[in-house]
Formats: sequence, structure tokens, C-alpha cells
Amino acid sequence: MTELHDKRGDRAEPAGSLAQRVADRMLTNDTATRSLGMHIVSVGPGRAELTMRIRPDMLNGHGTCHGGFIFALADSAFAFACNTHNYITVAAGCSIDYVRPALAGDLLTATAEERALAGRSGVYDIHVVNERGETVALFRGRSHRKQGHVVPE
Amino acid sequence: MTELHDKRGDRAEPAGSLAQRVADRMLTNDTATRSLGMHIVSVGPGRAELTMRIRPDMLNGHGTCHGGFIFALADSAFAFACNTHNYITVAAGCSIDYVRPALAGDLLTATAEERALAGRSGVYDIHVVNERGETVALFRGRSHRKQGHVVPE
Amino acid sequence: MTELHDKRGDRAEPAGSLAQRVADRMLTNDTATRSLGMHIVSVGPGRAELTMRIRPDMLNGHGTCHGGFIFALADSAFAFACNTHNYITVAAGCSIDYVRPALAGDLLTATAEERALAGRSGVYDIHVVNERGETVALFRGRSHRKQGHVVPE
Amino acid sequence: MTELHDKRGDRAEPAGSLAQRVADRMLTNDTATRSLGMHIVSVGPGRAELTMRIRPDMLNGHGTCHGGFIFALADSAFAFACNTHNYITVAAGCSIDYVRPALAGDLLTATAEERALAGRSGVYDIHVVNERGETVALFRGRSHRKQGHVVPE
Repeated sequence: MTELHDKRGDRAEPAGSLAQRVADRMLTNDTATRSLGMHIVSVGPGRAELTMRIRPDMLNGHGTCHGGFIFALADSAFAFACNTHNYITVAAGCSIDYVRPALAGDLLTATAEERALAGRSGVYDIHVVNERGETVALFRGRSHRKQGHVVPE
Repeated sequence: MTELHDKRGDRAEPAGSLAQRVADRMLTNDTATRSLGMHIVSVGPGRAELTMRIRPDMLNGHGTCHGGFIFALADSAFAFACNTHNYITVAAGCSIDYVRPALAGDLLTATAEERALAGRSGVYDIHVVNERGETVALFRGRSHRKQGHVVPE
Repeated sequence: MTELHDKRGDRAEPAGSLAQRVADRMLTNDTATRSLGMHIVSVGPGRAELTMRIRPDMLNGHGTCHGGFIFALADSAFAFACNTHNYITVAAGCSIDYVRPALAGDLLTATAEERALAGRSGVYDIHVVNERGETVALFRGRSHRKQGHVVPE
Repeated sequence: MTELHDKRGDRAEPAGSLAQRVADRMLTNDTATRSLGMHIVSVGPGRAELTMRIRPDMLNGHGTCHGGFIFALADSAFAFACNTHNYITVAAGCSIDYVRPALAGDLLTATAEERALAGRSGVYDIHVVNERGETVALFRGRSHRKQGHVVPE
């Protein structure tokens, strides 16, 4: 169990659940998610909730958070959610609509939910809000399931 | 002139061109683009070319580059391209299709081109390739022009 | 009141509501929506529900419903939903993810919901299901508000 | 050979080419494409060009062409292009950005080009212009290859 799970709240799965074991394994190697300061609040079958605080080094030339970092948070939530079934699953394509800017110091929360799963393809919606509950961005990801499992079944 | 322009090649605009002046100004405040190690190869009216080398801290749990960083490179190329006309312009929405993974050490190049501009909206295509010329991702961004200029006209 | 509202159910707004008046006015000129056999089940502030039955002339070369008609149903639901506030509003861009095919005779229902509204831009999600409640497609539309009203305030 | 190929110009493949044979076979069953009045101008490996004239029954409540029909034209061009390799291929997801409205009587041309093909997935860009050469819409489609061939090899 890593410190990244400290914030798991009431909705968290039991520590030994499949979704949680997959998330733990993924995080072990996921340097990107950790180096961006993301925390996993909870994971469950087909869903994940992550937080990230906007750092000064994440600002763009307009003084707001570079879209790439908002995208990265949503993308990580998407990745954790779509792998919870323990099939190795990758992103095929994603789209993001920006609703309002994020500023330095903002704590963003991304909530990923499975909207459809058919064959090897899935669709996930990720909602990114700031600590005032205002929508920052809406992200949609299409996943593609590959061969193999993330952790032993 | 910053070191970030060292790599500008034959297609580069004259140093004093409007597109170049806008890019210089944007970079001054764009901590995100610089902290990710991106370099501007060239900018011109409605276009920009940027490079970024994949670092070990950009890898995800599958051992390939986290999609957020590929997105961030494309998004920066998009931002520079859509501001070259010197109107403050932001991203309204973006989509990305991943074609093949990027690995640690890969040098990615993102080339942004303006595909349409009507009223305050524009559409830009960004092509991301690795140093072998293989397509890594295709990005499309929709821009929204706001009031004001980036640099004095 | 047109026959297109025959199917309005419990969730329908009062006939004289603003959302309903806007929908009535839009339908009067919307030859496309009518010629495709769509019915408006209900409209309300920021939402709309439409149905369409797949006709034999809507099939593609693979024997399933041409994606353009599934898109058209979702797009109409999107258009009605984003105009319910009585500001003339058009689509800026849309994306659709196909989950399962639709076949001749299927009755599709598209439910549009407003997900975000900021300034002149809005984001709407449209869920398309068949009569067995199975997801056929997920559509997301970005709207752009123009000058003027649909009906007199 | 159907009348739909009357307009094939210099870029057309030989009548017996694989891409052309696939297109001929697809059209035979593609009631949708024919009922919308589309014409195939040319097809070749990974590409297709189709035209469609906007009819009065294609107009929406704003008096311009319903987005669904512009989408349908682009979607057909996408379908023909991604099947030219003679593997049964369907759309996984598509996005469209509208640049300017189309009006009744406008003759639209959609040109589909393959941008990437990796494994079973492909990405195609479709450019829709009016007869004045003005961009009406930009469409991007992600294809998914299934088992089987369109015509005998």
C-alpha cells in the first residue's frame, strides 16, 4: 500500500479488492502520475477518482494551467478506471473540452466513470472539477483492451 | 532570443517577424512548456513545430510515455500556432488519437498547421512523429480568439 | 402544437413553457428532423429527448444503420437541448463513439443533457439507446451561442 | 459499374482495381448513401472522394443544412476510404468541426485521406468543401478492422 492511497475515503474498495490491486500495481511503475503529484482517492470496477494540485511549473504563457496537465490528470483517471477489470487496457483516443481555466494552487479532482464496454472497446467519461465544485474540463476516452492481465487473477 | 530557438531551421521566420515575437513573449511566461523540455523549432503564421524528448519520469504504468505528455507537446504546438496572428487565443477543445507508443529517450516532433479560421474559431491539426518519422499521435484542436493582443502591434 | 409532440410524457414541460415554445418554433422550419421521422418526446431547460425508427433506406453497405443517421438523431437532440434557453445556438463541433450497431426497425432514443455552460459555449452529452435500453452511441456536442432569440421573450 | 461512377475523373483507379471493386460492392447495398444523393467521384487505396448536393429537406430550424447530413457525407467518404484495402472495416468513433454553414443547393465535396494505419486501427481525415472551395467542415474518423473481406481476393 503506498502513501498515494492515504486519501481514500468511504467509497474506497477493500484494500485487497481486484480494482485496488490493479491500481497498486499500475502505480508502482507509473512515474508520470506520481511525478505530477496525483493522488488516488478511490478506485472501483470501471471507475477511479484522482486529485492533483496545480503547481507554478504547470502554467502556460497565459498564466493559467497548461491544458496538457489538466489532460494528464483526466487521462490518468481514465487509465486507472479502464484497467480495473484487470485486462491490460490502453487509450485509443481521447477528447477534452475546456470549460474554465485552472490556476496555480487549485486542487483538481478527476472522476472517471465507465459509460460503455463492448468487445475490446470501452468509453469513459472523466469530469474534472476544482475545489469549488466548478467544472474545469470534460474528457472522454475510448479504451482498447489488449492481451494479458495487470495482476495475477 | 532564447536558447529555445537554437534549433530553428530553414523554415524559420525572420527573428523580428510577428509570429516569432509572439512566440518569444509566450515562452517567457510558459513555465510548463519549458519545464517539459520542449524546444521551438520554428513558428510562422498559423504554424509551429516543437520537439520534446521523452524522459523516464514521463512513463506510465505500462512502461510507455503517459498520454498526457504526448498531448502536452501537441497542445503547446497548437497554442503557439494559433497565437501567431497576435490575437490572444485559447483552446476550446482538443482530441487526440494515439497511433503507436512513445518510449523513454524518443525525440518527438509536433507540427501544428492551421486548417480553418472563421470568425473567432480556428481548427488546427498537429502531427506528432518520433525520430524515425513514424506517426505517434494525431491531435486536432479548436481555438477560440479572445480580446487583446499578445504583443504590441 | 404539432403531432411531433404526441409522445411527450410525464417529464414534459407545460405546453406554454419557454423550452417548449422554442422547440415548437424550431420544428416548424426543421425539415430535416421531420423528414427523418424523428419525434420529440420531451424538452426542458438544457435537455431534450427524441426518438427515431431506423428505416431500410438508412442502411449502409454493411447492412447496419449508416452512422450519419445515428449522428443526425443525436445532433437534433443536441440542437433542441442547447436552444432551450432561447438564445440562437449552433453546433461548433461534435464527436460520436459507436458502441453497437443499430438495425432496420430499431427504435432509437436520444437523450441530451447539458453538462456545462460558460460564456457563449456549452457542452452537451447525448446518449443513444435502442428499445432494449442498450447503448448504441455516445455523442458529445460543443455549442456556440449567437446573437438573437429563437422566439420573442 | 453503376451510374454513381460517372463522375470519376483522372485520379480514378482502373475499373477493375481492388479499391474500385470494393466500392462497387459496398454501394450495391448502401441504400443510405444512394438515397442521400451522394456520388462517388473516385476511390483509391486509403482514399475516397464523394459529392452531395444539399436538398431542401436537409435544412434545419436555422435554415442551414442539418449537421447530420454534412456528417453523413463525410462518414460515407470515410467508410469507402477505410474499406479500400478490402478488409471489412467499421467506424469506431468520429469527430466533426463545423467551419461554415452549407445552404440549400450547395454541392459539397468530401475528400477522405488515410492518416495512419496501425494494427486494426486507422485514422482518416475528411475535408468537406463547397463548390467555391470554402471549407465547410473537418471530420476525423477512427476505423476498426474486423474479420473478413468485402469482395473475394
